[in-house]
Amino acid sequence: MKRAQAYGYTGMIPCGTRDQITDVPGIKVGHCTLDHENIHTGVTVILPPGDIYQNPCIAACHVQNGFGKTAGLMQIEELGTLETPIALTNTLNVGRISDALVHYMIDTEAEKGIHITTLNPVVGECNDSSINDITKTACGRKELEQAIVDANETFKEGAVGAGRGTICYGLKGGIGSASRIVTISGKAYTFGILVQSNFGRTACLQFNGSPIGKKIAEEINHPAESDKGSIMMILATDCPLSARQLKRVCRRVPNGLARTGSYTGNGSGEVVIGFSIANRLSRTKDLMNLQVLPDNVLDPVFLAASEMCEEAVYNSMLNAEATKKLDGSVCHALSEFLHA
Amino acid sequence: MKRAQAYGYTGMIPCGTRDQITDVPGIKVGHCTLDHENIHTGVTVILPPGDIYQNPCIAACHVQNGFGKTAGLMQIEELGTLETPIALTNTLNVGRISDALVHYMIDTEAEKGIHITTLNPVVGECNDSSINDITKTACGRKELEQAIVDANETFKEGAVGAGRGTICYGLKGGIGSASRIVTISGKAYTFGILVQSNFGRTACLQFNGSPIGKKIAEEINHPAESDKGSIMMILATDCPLSARQLKRVCRRVPNGLARTGSYTGNGSGEVVIGFSIANRLSRTKDLMNLQVLPDNVLDPVFLAASEMCEEAVYNSMLNAEATKKLDGSVCHALSEFLHA
Amino acid sequence: MKRAQAYGYTGMIPCGTRDQITDVPGIKVGHCTLDHENIHTGVTVILPPGDIYQNPCIAACHVQNGFGKTAGLMQIEELGTLETPIALTNTLNVGRISDALVHYMIDTEAEKGIHITTLNPVVGECNDSSINDITKTACGRKELEQAIVDANETFKEGAVGAGRGTICYGLKGGIGSASRIVTISGKAYTFGILVQSNFGRTACLQFNGSPIGKKIAEEINHPAESDKGSIMMILATDCPLSARQLKRVCRRVPNGLARTGSYTGNGSGEVVIGFSIANRLSRTKDLMNLQVLPDNVLDPVFLAASEMCEEAVYNSMLNAEATKKLDGSVCHALSEFLHA
Amino acid sequence: MKRAQAYGYTGMIPCGTRDQITDVPGIKVGHCTLDHENIHTGVTVILPPGDIYQNPCIAACHVQNGFGKTAGLMQIEELGTLETPIALTNTLNVGRISDALVHYMIDTEAEKGIHITTLNPVVGECNDSSINDITKTACGRKELEQAIVDANETFKEGAVGAGRGTICYGLKGGIGSASRIVTISGKAYTFGILVQSNFGRTACLQFNGSPIGKKIAEEINHPAESDKGSIMMILATDCPLSARQLKRVCRRVPNGLARTGSYTGNGSGEVVIGFSIANRLSRTKDLMNLQVLPDNVLDPVFLAASEMCEEAVYNSMLNAEATKKLDGSVCHALSEFLHA
Repeated sequence: MKRAQAYGYTGMIPCGTRDQITDVPGIKVGHCTLDHENIHTGVTVILPPGDIYQNPCIAACHVQNGFGKTAGLMQIEELGTLETPIALTNTLNVGRISDALVHYMIDTEAEKGIHITTLNPVVGECNDSSINDITKTACGRKELEQAIVDANETFKEGAVGAGRGTICYGLKGGIGSASRIVTISGKAYTFGILVQSNFGRTACLQFNGSPIGKKIAEEINHPAESDKGSIMMILATDCPLSARQLKRVCRRVPNGLARTGSYTGNGSGEVVIGFSIANRLSRTKDLMNLQVLPDNVLDPVFLAASEMCEEAVYNSMLNAEATKKLDGSVCHALSEFLHA
Repeated sequence: MKRAQAYGYTGMIPCGTRDQITDVPGIKVGHCTLDHENIHTGVTVILPPGDIYQNPCIAACHVQNGFGKTAGLMQIEELGTLETPIALTNTLNVGRISDALVHYMIDTEAEKGIHITTLNPVVGECNDSSINDITKTACGRKELEQAIVDANETFKEGAVGAGRGTICYGLKGGIGSASRIVTISGKAYTFGILVQSNFGRTACLQFNGSPIGKKIAEEINHPAESDKGSIMMILATDCPLSARQLKRVCRRVPNGLARTGSYTGNGSGEVVIGFSIANRLSRTKDLMNLQVLPDNVLDPVFLAASEMCEEAVYNSMLNAEATKKLDGSVCHALSEFLHA
Repeated sequence: MKRAQAYGYTGMIPCGTRDQITDVPGIKVGHCTLDHENIHTGVTVILPPGDIYQNPCIAACHVQNGFGKTAGLMQIEELGTLETPIALTNTLNVGRISDALVHYMIDTEAEKGIHITTLNPVVGECNDSSINDITKTACGRKELEQAIVDANETFKEGAVGAGRGTICYGLKGGIGSASRIVTISGKAYTFGILVQSNFGRTACLQFNGSPIGKKIAEEINHPAESDKGSIMMILATDCPLSARQLKRVCRRVPNGLARTGSYTGNGSGEVVIGFSIANRLSRTKDLMNLQVLPDNVLDPVFLAASEMCEEAVYNSMLNAEATKKLDGSVCHALSEFLHA
Repeated sequence: MKRAQAYGYTGMIPCGTRDQITDVPGIKVGHCTLDHENIHTGVTVILPPGDIYQNPCIAACHVQNGFGKTAGLMQIEELGTLETPIALTNTLNVGRISDALVHYMIDTEAEKGIHITTLNPVVGECNDSSINDITKTACGRKELEQAIVDANETFKEGAVGAGRGTICYGLKGGIGSASRIVTISGKAYTFGILVQSNFGRTACLQFNGSPIGKKIAEEINHPAESDKGSIMMILATDCPLSARQLKRVCRRVPNGLARTGSYTGNGSGEVVIGFSIANRLSRTKDLMNLQVLPDNVLDPVFLAASEMCEEAVYNSMLNAEATKKLDGSVCHALSEFLHA
């Protein structure tokens, strides 16, 4: 598969080796994809390095549009920490995957002698009900664990994992990623993003500033999509930022959506979750020493957040192949209309 | 059991017939209580009248302290609507009960020919791990449905349902309720509240202004409680308020906690969810006519919200009997120390 | 002067007659521009129709980036109402113009026999200190009143009023406007926006998707701008929306900034204030009847909000002429680089 | 004058030497009180130690009820910093005092060779229009500077400065303060609060848990107060907390209001601003080393914040003497009804 840069997309900030979220040291991504009968859905996990329960990451979140069902945001907002891997799945499956994540963490920590009695599982979602029989809530503990076992520094984009059944700009969406290397005072920091794309109206799609959606919409001649979108945006970095600053970064990420043509539709739950692997916390009661950058050097970080998101959306679409919907119609792929 | 008013508590605003949330016309409350071996937990449901999916209620929420795992708040915040019953359970059980609520709604609406493919289940929680083996996540579809079947205008308070295993001010907590009748421009509106109480330090407890906690703390001589609280506060009314106004009302509810002695501890997830059965919505695309009160008449509503919450906490404690904890020690009842 | 559409910009939603905020019935805009010695600043006012104090508008606001000093947002957020005209000026002048607005309202209402003892003046700002000696806080009661007297349905864009000294993408910014007609269920509603533009880095500027900023940045060869931006975005409509819904609309407006190339810089205070002239309120204590649209028809409104903002930024720049900065260098005009 | 502790009030956490905000090392408070004809108002300033512009403090804010006009909160929320002294005055005077604070800072820093072109003045307010002819906006640069010159570690409470004309629970309010020493892991941290009290209904007043307001309301037999309250709550500490944590502390402060009987009335603007003198920032672009406490030790801090606020409200009332209102009636003092 080709990615956005092969089609002429270029950002202003240099990207990392893989141009994926796993350029951030230690981050792994894994998928479990379900594909049988009317079930075309899955789970995608983003794993921070180390023991995320015993050494939580500083984290933040931003809700661009709250018509969504992501679990775990309230506590991230209050405490500024992430204490589980992040799992993505379909909308109606959030409950089962939250439960699976709770038990996975209880069991994993129990092996280390840690007895968990409270936990904040973080589970994001998109609604894939045009392609997947979402009422079956097909993903559970087994699928979560498969995704975790699958997790690696290299991972597939497109119609895999939690992106198996998603639709973006009326074309096939899915999982996409990108990364950026931001140099501040001579020191290089890595930022990565992973999106589960499921939003937008075909006619509005822009690629790299070009309004290609109008022509595509005429060509595929499909009716206006239903009002059941969403996009999950997961940002990771090794840059030393406070929870307040990470939230500022998260709030810039949707700039990238707007550049792809989004007007943030009513039914599109749009959620950003960001975490930093710098300043790993512990569960002690001691005074902590933290390193943080001042806010007045963050402009390149904000630019990186904006443009990574744009590129990750393109990557999610360009790596996804045309798929049949439950109603028998075809969900086309962006690559059918765009040429490298 | 006696309730707070039997012990001398009096508010400034008159209460309704039952002095419970079910004084709001059509509201029903049901419990399912689990009590076997180390399982002492349950589910409590608050059911608005009518078909809450097809005719959502205007709703709002307020997070007093976000160290909690309540599901469904993001969408309430964005859309100002409630489209499922509200279920309460223990912290680690939120995933399973969310899943159960999703399937309950899918199945119930399917019988009416409605095909649900997206839904925002609202599930609150408290951590009952001192009394209940919370890692068992013992509540599922069966327990949810039992609570729904049990729902009625009369319901028990104290150590029942989702309050079976909760601890409040180091004493036995549970489910409590209260109501108020607020008259504005000659018209009477009913406000009701239901709490699941699980917060507070014994020494801080005040009853009706009296600092009884200090003496109780000396008497029971127990060590400082662990940092795993929470209180869910569900407010219902038939008063015509917008989502913005309901949020203002929700933000006043924790005044009642402060009056019982709370300082809003670090580990106490404190969440208010409010809804109004006036102005029931439909899923049409037509211009809507809403009636709402102006903000400048809301002072008695704010007072009612504050004092209902205080009384409901007392009622939750006064109706709960002493219980054995998992570690073999006793969790005393407030009624042992307070005399009518 | 030519406006964005003369340079090839086209939106997806039709615009109103003037393509300005004053297409919303009864809205007037006025400027007072100061231009002497080192003083190059001013005041711009947006006047809702009728008596805004006695009949407040439903209103909302959104802070895209809070590095700014706008006055009046806290009360808009709490009550969802606007009770004064909106005035725009430079950053350090917010205090004097707030004071002027308070006294203007006191005096105006006193003539009608109304005694004002509390008021929430709404004053937005951008930092024009590269072109204007901002420390002089040159705008006061006189300048505010001149702007109010000047208010009309036709008004100038570009380097006038509060836009006299602003810089956008390193080029001359200023006041810009646009409008859209959104038809919902056969009924046409007008949306208008006015911006005071003062943000962005030259190299990032996009016009209608085209990355023209890179070339301009090379041509003008100026150093990175200082970190003192801001953009005020004022949205008006005759569409019947609740304060909650208006806030949703306001949150979409910055999509338009992203489309012009913005990454929401650290130092750029970016504030949206929206109001509706439907459902005008009164200061009574009676139950109110409001008409509001359901959220599920708002997609075209969200698109209109996003694209109006983009166009208004272009209009602010295309109508502004090159200006000398305080340091003697030239602030170029976009029109020097863009050809109709 | 006697203070709350002389009347039997006792908190659970020990207070500092003065039991005032100036127990926090280096904090100074000053007043300017105006008293002539119908002018009974003033300015109160809270000065952090050192150069607050060049070395901003970490800061946070919380809006308990947004029916108020405090200036400067948006930027505190975004950046988590305080860069000016905090000034308090009457509602309509916020504009003039903001302007005065801007020029005071410009002039002060100019003497040190610093050229300020942007600044976030922080000015809080209460509405004193029952006692003071608020439309005169009598406070300006001269009054601000007098308050700054007056600033000291010892300062008056009661009807002075910005508290000259305020009314609390229908009795004379004003400036009040309290402090607490919180020991964490063997280290003592000082927390102080200063309030400008102007809220509440007589009948609701509680002193130390005792509902004394009912009897006082009968005795003074005055009609319900008008709907123009507010309370400003300024919290200072030397405890090393992040902006996120300071916000958590600020959110606990209104627990103290509830304990005095508040239900957070509709018209009462209630604002908390907190800052820490630990981790003083500089305006460099270098990586910063910060020390912060973990959240899991903050319970005593939250208790301190709650009870300091309660005590400071009592102190503001007990130090204020009966005053004549503009309508000729008497505003009684709490000390008339409470005996030590």
